[in-house]
Amino acid sequence: MAPPTPRLVVPIDLKKRPWEQPLPLHNRRQLDIPPVSHVKASELFRVAMVDWSGPIRVEDKDGISAMPGDLLAVEICNLGPLPGDEWGYTATYDRENGGGFLTDHFPCATKAIWYFEGIYAYSPHIPGVRFPVLTHPGIIGMAPWMELLNIWNDREREVEEKHKSLKLCEVLHTRPLANLPSTIGYHLGKIEKGTAEWEMIADEAARTIPERESGGNSDIKNLSRGDGEVSFCGAIEMSGYLELKCEVIKGGMKEYLTPMGPTLLHVNPIFEIGPVEPRFSKWLVFEGISVDESGNQHFLDASVAYKRAVLNAIDYLSKFGYSKEQIYILLSCCPCEGRFSGIVASHNAVTTLSIPTAIFDKDIRPNAGKVPVGPRLVRKHDVLRCSYDENLPTTKNPAALM
Amino acid sequence: MAPPTPRLVVPIDLKKRPWEQPLPLHNRRQLDIPPVSHVKASELFRVAMVDWSGPIRVEDKDGISAMPGDLLAVEICNLGPLPGDEWGYTATYDRENGGGFLTDHFPCATKAIWYFEGIYAYSPHIPGVRFPVLTHPGIIGMAPWMELLNIWNDREREVEEKHKSLKLCEVLHTRPLANLPSTIGYHLGKIEKGTAEWEMIADEAARTIPERESGGNSDIKNLSRGDGEVSFCGAIEMSGYLELKCEVIKGGMKEYLTPMGPTLLHVNPIFEIGPVEPRFSKWLVFEGISVDESGNQHFLDASVAYKRAVLNAIDYLSKFGYSKEQIYILLSCCPCEGRFSGIVASHNAVTTLSIPTAIFDKDIRPNAGKVPVGPRLVRKHDVLRCSYDENLPTTKNPAALM
Amino acid sequence: MAPPTPRLVVPIDLKKRPWEQPLPLHNRRQLDIPPVSHVKASELFRVAMVDWSGPIRVEDKDGISAMPGDLLAVEICNLGPLPGDEWGYTATYDRENGGGFLTDHFPCATKAIWYFEGIYAYSPHIPGVRFPVLTHPGIIGMAPWMELLNIWNDREREVEEKHKSLKLCEVLHTRPLANLPSTIGYHLGKIEKGTAEWEMIADEAARTIPERESGGNSDIKNLSRGDGEVSFCGAIEMSGYLELKCEVIKGGMKEYLTPMGPTLLHVNPIFEIGPVEPRFSKWLVFEGISVDESGNQHFLDASVAYKRAVLNAIDYLSKFGYSKEQIYILLSCCPCEGRFSGIVASHNAVTTLSIPTAIFDKDIRPNAGKVPVGPRLVRKHDVLRCSYDENLPTTKNPAALM
Amino acid sequence: MAPPTPRLVVPIDLKKRPWEQPLPLHNRRQLDIPPVSHVKASELFRVAMVDWSGPIRVEDKDGISAMPGDLLAVEICNLGPLPGDEWGYTATYDRENGGGFLTDHFPCATKAIWYFEGIYAYSPHIPGVRFPVLTHPGIIGMAPWMELLNIWNDREREVEEKHKSLKLCEVLHTRPLANLPSTIGYHLGKIEKGTAEWEMIADEAARTIPERESGGNSDIKNLSRGDGEVSFCGAIEMSGYLELKCEVIKGGMKEYLTPMGPTLLHVNPIFEIGPVEPRFSKWLVFEGISVDESGNQHFLDASVAYKRAVLNAIDYLSKFGYSKEQIYILLSCCPCEGRFSGIVASHNAVTTLSIPTAIFDKDIRPNAGKVPVGPRLVRKHDVLRCSYDENLPTTKNPAALM
Repeated sequence: MAPPTPRLVVPIDLKKRPWEQPLPLHNRRQLDIPPVSHVKASELFRVAMVDWSGPIRVEDKDGISAMPGDLLAVEICNLGPLPGDEWGYTATYDRENGGGFLTDHFPCATKAIWYFEGIYAYSPHIPGVRFPVLTHPGIIGMAPWMELLNIWNDREREVEEKHKSLKLCEVLHTRPLANLPSTIGYHLGKIEKGTAEWEMIADEAARTIPERESGGNSDIKNLSRGDGEVSFCGAIEMSGYLELKCEVIKGGMKEYLTPMGPTLLHVNPIFEIGPVEPRFSKWLVFEGISVDESGNQHFLDASVAYKRAVLNAIDYLSKFGYSKEQIYILLSCCPCEGRFSGIVASHNAVTTLSIPTAIFDKDIRPNAGKVPVGPRLVRKHDVLRCSYDENLPTTKNPAALM
Repeated sequence: MAPPTPRLVVPIDLKKRPWEQPLPLHNRRQLDIPPVSHVKASELFRVAMVDWSGPIRVEDKDGISAMPGDLLAVEICNLGPLPGDEWGYTATYDRENGGGFLTDHFPCATKAIWYFEGIYAYSPHIPGVRFPVLTHPGIIGMAPWMELLNIWNDREREVEEKHKSLKLCEVLHTRPLANLPSTIGYHLGKIEKGTAEWEMIADEAARTIPERESGGNSDIKNLSRGDGEVSFCGAIEMSGYLELKCEVIKGGMKEYLTPMGPTLLHVNPIFEIGPVEPRFSKWLVFEGISVDESGNQHFLDASVAYKRAVLNAIDYLSKFGYSKEQIYILLSCCPCEGRFSGIVASHNAVTTLSIPTAIFDKDIRPNAGKVPVGPRLVRKHDVLRCSYDENLPTTKNPAALM
Repeated sequence: MAPPTPRLVVPIDLKKRPWEQPLPLHNRRQLDIPPVSHVKASELFRVAMVDWSGPIRVEDKDGISAMPGDLLAVEICNLGPLPGDEWGYTATYDRENGGGFLTDHFPCATKAIWYFEGIYAYSPHIPGVRFPVLTHPGIIGMAPWMELLNIWNDREREVEEKHKSLKLCEVLHTRPLANLPSTIGYHLGKIEKGTAEWEMIADEAARTIPERESGGNSDIKNLSRGDGEVSFCGAIEMSGYLELKCEVIKGGMKEYLTPMGPTLLHVNPIFEIGPVEPRFSKWLVFEGISVDESGNQHFLDASVAYKRAVLNAIDYLSKFGYSKEQIYILLSCCPCEGRFSGIVASHNAVTTLSIPTAIFDKDIRPNAGKVPVGPRLVRKHDVLRCSYDENLPTTKNPAALM
Repeated sequence: MAPPTPRLVVPIDLKKRPWEQPLPLHNRRQLDIPPVSHVKASELFRVAMVDWSGPIRVEDKDGISAMPGDLLAVEICNLGPLPGDEWGYTATYDRENGGGFLTDHFPCATKAIWYFEGIYAYSPHIPGVRFPVLTHPGIIGMAPWMELLNIWNDREREVEEKHKSLKLCEVLHTRPLANLPSTIGYHLGKIEKGTAEWEMIADEAARTIPERESGGNSDIKNLSRGDGEVSFCGAIEMSGYLELKCEVIKGGMKEYLTPMGPTLLHVNPIFEIGPVEPRFSKWLVFEGISVDESGNQHFLDASVAYKRAVLNAIDYLSKFGYSKEQIYILLSCCPCEGRFSGIVASHNAVTTLSIPTAIFDKDIRPNAGKVPVGPRLVRKHDVLRCSYDENLPTTKNPAALM
């Protein structure tokens, strides 16, 4: 019956230099909040979500650090945009520069700016939409020790080398396949670029793009103080702060976690959801099954099914006066939900994308009348977009051409 | 501002014999409720969820049937177990007989019986658990006309023929790959087996195992009067009733839907969620990323990631005195939620499985103390299970053997 | 961490004839469900909500009845309208025949019929409104033993005798002041009228109009399987069924309850709310303070304040094309909520009445434009109403006459 | 279908000196945030909740002020504790110094300090309790013009003069009966005490203790950005900030409001609830009926009934190792809910007080076992309290003495 608070429970695999391996966060400005390097368990502390906001050493009341084999329970007591910096953006990348989930349909880079009115966000680039922004720390996790880091680098190198021509199930044309350590585009907070320390770290430290065993870029909307934001390909990026409390569950890895893979390090974080969340009463839900745009069946492939659900939603909502790029950006940051509905012993995974209807200023549900599209509804503004030079082929919707 | 009710909006592709192609439903007993064959739009009608509960012809007030190109909006006003038959079961299949999502880990057939106390279910085979059963029609959809039926049969035959050795991303070892028309194990309601009519239908009609373009076995928990049940590999199968209202949106296919594939028939249903649902304040959430049990990376494969999230949950919960088979069955029918958390331009899909803690009679959250496993907690009862003769290899968890 | 279910915990004060004193329920038809007179603790049983649906003797597994000093925990597992009888009504009484909370404003009898479409209700008498009907047992409680019955009759007789001219704080002009035992209008189920047994019971048994110490006509919307209905002066009266489970907490009265009055019998039931309830995201809220229609202040009188909140809501909503009587009836049965907001050391109680906007088919919120009242919105239908012969004076709204 | 945001809609009665009449707020420290005196409609602005945080003049884009007869819609976009000042307190007053709802039972002054950990509050004075603090502006409303001010002062003077011996229904012994203008204990922000301006204002301006026609000290928990806090006799007082947007509905008083009293000024604000609120799944609910501690019946008096519900809750919860004063303070600020359940044409009002069980660190529900009270549960800490010199008699619970 303990009071409900959102908690992230992460395994601690550290043996060496536990807090020297930075989790470099990419953000937009330097802050006056000093870096936190030592915190006591059970004590609230505040961190800014900026480049040099980690790593943090967690100690018990006697100054003894959390140890390998412990579990670290991080309670998120509050979080939000940095006062004075209440804006953010959502973007898609050019297909040759990272792309995204639907990059074969939307290959060019686009961007929308969001302004915050208290807990609400609106964008001049996507008019007619307003919703409670439900902040979460996109990247949160343990700094890995060398053994886990080597596992990561080995398996990701293998993906890159073996599957240079990989198109996931021949449908998801996304690149890159992995983000191995590299000295390009690296931010290391206060460590000066070009120094020996900088080179050493950049050469071996993990890039924080993907989620891995010890946490990372999970983008889990419910990993908030409860205010949740779902994201299938992004979020609203902003400067923010976090108020955290840590507890160490001594020896908790063995007690609670079962590794799921070849080594004892193949585990995943677990978390608890907080008690505060937005309340929506009406949702419009789009289904997708694992049949691709060419009509080919992909068995229980949930990624293909979810891609189709998202494409269905984009096409449907664009009938209400939006560009497809506006909806793609919107679905990346509004409080929608993507779910596995059925992934069973049959040959079609069923996935759904649920969208709360109240974020729109008009009724978007299907009704007996015509879709109210017309001069009145054609949105004058659109997202910012670059052109795409089309080195890679894009996917067309064959049926749309009929 | 219309009142919120759950609605399923399905495309109508029928050109020929619209209500002659049965959607055969497999259920457990014959009922006294007469089959409904003609209903008027806007009028409430009640159907039993049994073998011969369809198809249903929907007419407007002048007796004119819904037409190809229309959308059919089916409002689910109520549903529940059949009075006098308040029990159900959840099962997994033997790996040689259909298997399931985790069939390479759980190859043998298992079963739990659930009894209903009003809206609550409990099982003598999984003690210590009780939850509101949140009924939904597992299978609901439009009967296809011949052109769509041919598309289904062609693409599913191709999966079977081309990929006889397919292991999805070399990880999901499930069989069969498709369910083509067959005269084996077919239920056709009142049509007598062996007659010419029976043979004709069985030879061409679609098996209702998977969800397809016009709806079907979606098992979407929210497609209820609001009381929802999530299912990743099953549900509680029971005898039930449905109270429905239909509306026809004339010409709605063109107005609202955009086909996503090679023909105009490649569309999917959409639906709206009702206003009544269970309220849980605490959830324990398990993550999974697209790294398989052998440590191999599978890029953005959400099915692999979700498999790992479910395996993580099963292993964790089995520490509280349950067998893994009990948890596998439980997660197939309790009000848990499977979500896509991140499926972005990085190389690891992040999925989550959320479980409401209140369905257990003890605290299952990780705490500083030891997991309270001991003689007091060892459950005396278990699910019913058959042995597996092991023609196909199963997956072991390498780390668990260390 | 036990699973959440709605439970009513009532004190057992019985010493004599515990199940012979009927709780007569007034309802509309005789049923085929046999009366339940003996039930075992922990076993589910089903009762019809009709005239002779009680009392019920609760025994443990050895056949020993619940005893004075025990607590009886009644779990409501399910409830709903009787199959085949899916309709109900809401009514206000003539001021000379019982009246109601606003009887000095609405002195005549009115009535609306509601039809159920699954869990939804609509009324031809109040068009443009539809909502999930959230059933609860209006009257549920323990049959009192003679000592408690005498306390009731004594204090209610005192109210009638001492305060014949009482107008509560000179504002609430409701009658009658109490409902003492009487042989008029009594329903005693299968006991034949005019027999000695009938006369004896009618002469001493409590009328079930008000809630008292051992439960009764509480009309608490959340005392459901979770589906709740709030009611400030009524509900939708219907034929229904209940599925219940009883547990006896031996000696629980002393353990858990503290009497709040001159004797040990002055206690009240407590209850727990179930996990299933309707989800509304938008509420329009009306305030009321304890100043009456004549402008007089009534200190912390919450009844006066709530009367004003309800009058404010009725006047506001009637601007959208409804008669005031329609809104009065609607607020008696729709899922609205009446709350104490502030009742502190200041001299004005603050109360609120919250109404979910989604039950209306148009937007009822105040906006910059004009209230959309016009020929299009004038409702053609109204509630059924009788005339009032006006023996008692009614309250006019002075400001409305300006 | 506009996006849901919490809005307060208040009537504007101003004719003269609209923004010169302060709404004096009592708070704890001066701030660096400058006073806001002019704001544009539709523009977000931030105010500190401190002494001189008002009044505010609202203008349209041409600089024209809101006018008498308009409605002012104030959208609360965000609010929270002032950064760097994250603590608050809840107190009860000595019976001779204002008292409170239960002052005849709890006559002495008590106090608990609350510390905030992000959105959560805990108090060293009430151990074992933690909950999300759900901030609201206790006092918000329109500054009245002279005519409305005179109505207030006249009727409150009448209460004081006519009812010097008033005990509400002879049960609620609270004092004072009203708060007329006075030069004692007045805070007027930057206006210097003793100046002619100070004297003039203090002599005629309304005290903000009670809620009145144009808003004021409503303490409505849902008047937040959605995070709600219910309070029956207080709240957690803290330094805070508000982010607001105002819209003027021209001529809205006549369009939307119906006066309910002798003049056109007898109206009340209405408001809309926001979409973000805490989620609790289990509530323990205490009933109260309008029978007082001496066993006397008070007809439909909801204040008496609610007093009994609160006393029932205090006595029940104090069995779990708390002092009654701790529970009284706790119920003044935790997210509980007080409701009117039945206030009908019968002679007992039914009220309820619902408390979320998850705010306690143990199970507080009634169970078959004994209440777990013992040395382990006796709380070492208690609220701070003064002695009471007992000039006025207090109410004893007669039954508790048996």
